[in-house]
Amino acid sequence: MRALRWDGSRLELARAVPSPTPAAGDALVRVALAGICRTDLEITRGYLEFRGTLGHEWVGRVVAAGDAALLGRRVVGDINFACGRCALCAADLGRHCPTRRVLGILGADGAFADLVAVPERNLHLVPDGVPDVAAVFTEPLAAAFEILDQVGAVSGARATVLGAGKLGLLVAQVLAHAGADVRVCARHPTQRGRADRLGIASGDPVPGADLVVDATGTADGLRQALMLARPRGTVVLKTTVAGEHQLDLAPAVVNEITVVGSRCGRFPPALEALAGGGVAVELMVDAVVPLDEAVAGFGRAASAGAMKILLDARED
Amino acid sequence: MRALRWDGSRLELARAVPSPTPAAGDALVRVALAGICRTDLEITRGYLEFRGTLGHEWVGRVVAAGDAALLGRRVVGDINFACGRCALCAADLGRHCPTRRVLGILGADGAFADLVAVPERNLHLVPDGVPDVAAVFTEPLAAAFEILDQVGAVSGARATVLGAGKLGLLVAQVLAHAGADVRVCARHPTQRGRADRLGIASGDPVPGADLVVDATGTADGLRQALMLARPRGTVVLKTTVAGEHQLDLAPAVVNEITVVGSRCGRFPPALEALAGGGVAVELMVDAVVPLDEAVAGFGRAASAGAMKILLDARED
Repeated sequence: MRALRWDGSRLELARAVPSPTPAAGDALVRVALAGICRTDLEITRGYLEFRGTLGHEWVGRVVAAGDAALLGRRVVGDINFACGRCALCAADLGRHCPTRRVLGILGADGAFADLVAVPERNLHLVPDGVPDVAAVFTEPLAAAFEILDQVGAVSGARATVLGAGKLGLLVAQVLAHAGADVRVCARHPTQRGRADRLGIASGDPVPGADLVVDATGTADGLRQALMLARPRGTVVLKTTVAGEHQLDLAPAVVNEITVVGSRCGRFPPALEALAGGGVAVELMVDAVVPLDEAVAGFGRAASAGAMKILLDARED
Repeated sequence: MRALRWDGSRLELARAVPSPTPAAGDALVRVALAGICRTDLEITRGYLEFRGTLGHEWVGRVVAAGDAALLGRRVVGDINFACGRCALCAADLGRHCPTRRVLGILGADGAFADLVAVPERNLHLVPDGVPDVAAVFTEPLAAAFEILDQVGAVSGARATVLGAGKLGLLVAQVLAHAGADVRVCARHPTQRGRADRLGIASGDPVPGADLVVDATGTADGLRQALMLARPRGTVVLKTTVAGEHQLDLAPAVVNEITVVGSRCGRFPPALEALAGGGVAVELMVDAVVPLDEAVAGFGRAASAGAMKILLDARED
């Protein structure tokens, strides 16, 4: 089969990769679409030292499974492969299981391939009304919903989202959907145009926000977020920037700001929002690129202002 | 009167400083004891660019006040002089009033002096059973209690306190008093001895804590705290280190840790704990130095391993 492989120095679309051998409890899934995420780009810059097949945002169809009810079904899947037995797993926090593998990120080959092996218990059926091009956003949308799991009710809160990229616009929609008064900081007219079409206010940031989400993907985002949050306000850190950076945290102490690190989320709220139309994602797709052209797709995803690049593994 | 003045480059005990002129609503207080805090030391290293009389931890007796009931009473006082009219003040968060002055820190001469002017509404009566040497700890103890206001119930939580100095031991006692299972990280036998006498477990840190409080006063404390907190755990940042420092926040995102900046607290819980004997503070006093020897006292407070140095302005 085909798979986009990263060997620590080079990305290559390999064409004669052995199909994954599902372990006990795994399903084998034929990938339809897969999305390139900032984390994928960070990995090719050395983050987490992953080697193997990249890709953790995907939608596909089950071709082999122990559970016959899954056969032929269209699915998405939680990317954290947890032990299912530890205290964190018992608390429904398998996303933090200390022995977890993470699809395409840590110890598990990912979904930029024709086939991917995923634990059956990680799979979620995609409702019929949700097309592949929307379902492929389930994973990043779940990461946006994770904010609500962590900070609780946001109804009526003045929320500022820093970063009008893919994740920023998903976060803005989730917060607006939950009743927050949301403003996305966007400098470029293109970004403002997208926010407008989503019904989200945009423009320069206004200090004094109850909640600020840093989805900039840059080390400077947190510094700016700390300046924009009101005293006793909350900053959600959705940006993973590898390595050490200069930061002055005195403002966080003086203003008693709470900084919440936020990563993956549960899939059901995301699938529900996609099915109910509460969140629009197609607007965020820049291009659908055949898997054969995955390396070029990566280049495009890394360019300034790029939105989502999807890799299409479906047969013509 | 005498006052310990900082002019931006030099500390001096001035002896002919005019007495403060109380504004409307201010009481004039004769200082008994005042404590040297890490923030005072930071100010003499350039933090906040304060100029004037230092000192914000104090206990004294009212010598002039509009409210006759205050005359002659022994008091302590909230260090944040708030407007009393803004939204934050209305929410009982005058400590964050945007136009506040802060005693001995921002726009208000402090308490390392014979007399200090403080708004009457900032004053709290000291219960008779609480001696001056304990009452002078009300302000830092309130800062320790602030953690409970911010993070809520800690009963049963595994809590780690980094830093076995003055603030660290106050925090440890407050958390233990609130039912947490507390461990103070202390390397030096002297520090361990103090923890033992307070009935607090000490030793090397153990990863996986529900709550980690950084009271190290160093830029490295947060880095260590992030490594010790469990996934979805909480880190309280009680350390104000001026300026920028290198920090890798990826662990906070990956483990979804909540970092809570924490500063000043309400006085009543601290006074109640001092009166009820729930917290022991005398153990933390290294020396009581006459106000006349304040500059030498500062040098001693800045030495490695120093605990609380109190300045005594009482007449012999």
